[in-house]
Amino acid sequence: MGPLQLVLIRHGESQWNKENRFTGWTDVPLSEKGKKEAQAGGRLLREEGFVFDKAYTSVLKRAIKTLWIVLEEMDLMWIPVVRAWELNERHYGGLQGLNKSETAKKYGEEQVLIWRRSYDTPPPELTKESAYYPGKDLKYRELSEEQIPLTESLKITIERVVPYWEKVIVPELKAGKRLLIAAHGNSLRALVKYLDGISNEEITKLNIPTGVPLVYELDKDITPIRHYYLGDQEAIQAKMAAVANQGKK
Amino acid sequence: MGPLQLVLIRHGESQWNKENRFTGWTDVPLSEKGKKEAQAGGRLLREEGFVFDKAYTSVLKRAIKTLWIVLEEMDLMWIPVVRAWELNERHYGGLQGLNKSETAKKYGEEQVLIWRRSYDTPPPELTKESAYYPGKDLKYRELSEEQIPLTESLKITIERVVPYWEKVIVPELKAGKRLLIAAHGNSLRALVKYLDGISNEEITKLNIPTGVPLVYELDKDITPIRHYYLGDQEAIQAKMAAVANQGKK
Repeated sequence: MGPLQLVLIRHGESQWNKENRFTGWTDVPLSEKGKKEAQAGGRLLREEGFVFDKAYTSVLKRAIKTLWIVLEEMDLMWIPVVRAWELNERHYGGLQGLNKSETAKKYGEEQVLIWRRSYDTPPPELTKESAYYPGKDLKYRELSEEQIPLTESLKITIERVVPYWEKVIVPELKAGKRLLIAAHGNSLRALVKYLDGISNEEITKLNIPTGVPLVYELDKDITPIRHYYLGDQEAIQAKMAAVANQGKK
Repeated sequence: MGPLQLVLIRHGESQWNKENRFTGWTDVPLSEKGKKEAQAGGRLLREEGFVFDKAYTSVLKRAIKTLWIVLEEMDLMWIPVVRAWELNERHYGGLQGLNKSETAKKYGEEQVLIWRRSYDTPPPELTKESAYYPGKDLKYRELSEEQIPLTESLKITIERVVPYWEKVIVPELKAGKRLLIAAHGNSLRALVKYLDGISNEEITKLNIPTGVPLVYELDKDITPIRHYYLGDQEAIQAKMAAVANQGKK
């Protein structure tokens, strides 16, 4: 048996990525550019001969739509798809809805970089009265009050992503299923940190580009053998730099 | 507790509906008109205040795409979706790919009406060598050879739709889940025949229009209290007549 196969894909540009606003659990749609990114990602996977047995995504429409576009492009609309809130983007607390540049002007670039990239400093909490409180959303009605975040650091995000990964996804990989996960910048960073054993320090510098398939080959114990981005490597580097620069004034 | 709620929707026009060809399990996409029909169905459901907890569809892309469009229109992309081959269209055997009018000219309208609408006369079988044999398709690799049809009458279709309904869907309804099923002309006729106790004779005259939500209210024993089509009733009658006339020369 060859290596086990996992592909991660971060959703394409959303309406709020475009407007440079903190999104988190806010359920905003893909922009037209985002749809094209997803299509390009799907085409690349098809051209490289990838096939999946099952796919996972979050309950947020920008990740679901990305997955739908990829599956349609790959002629794999029929494979089972599991939606899990555990794969949602990191909750951005009281920053949700705010413009990233304006927030940088107000609080300073350094503070914004801490909120965006620090391992364990969460942004300010939102209140339960906020329109953004997930407890008001039908999607999360089966979550207990303790499970509903008011804000999340990457550390807190890892604490929901990794148990879901271990409990639900790893057994499927071990059964030989070829899996695709369409998710978000920070839920994927959480997973990649865990998979590759990246330090709390190093993870702050890791940026995952949008719409680019990130291929993992794993051994039977789910240890990564290698990973690589599919596609034009120079264009991918430029995309990663663009993500890193969003928090600048 | 009010009545239990189930909505059935037949996929919009597919590429082969447009070309008037027998489709069955052939996995053809929706036409542009079909996408618009699905959108209209979804809009109607949203405007009438429908909400679903879960959705079911077949493994054929025309039904899946219809469901996707409806869920996007209703802002319900996050609900769980189950794809099941048991909800596939009736397998049209050796007729798959043939033009309906040409087949009527060759075999006579009467014979085509028997193949299309008879309760228990299946079309001629396809062979395992045929490009249309489902055993060659990755989607059906978990089916045993006995489960893979070479042709199906409505009776044979019922024999896979109803056990799936009883085993998988009924328990969800009894648990109070509001369900949406996006499927096909004949898999939905199979279900409607069973639900409403329609005779083998009467079912041959029943035509389900494309893209129109068919609402069932059921009591706790899953007995239908009433059912109705959502939308402009005159336009729906015209659509049903159009389906009935497809087999004419």
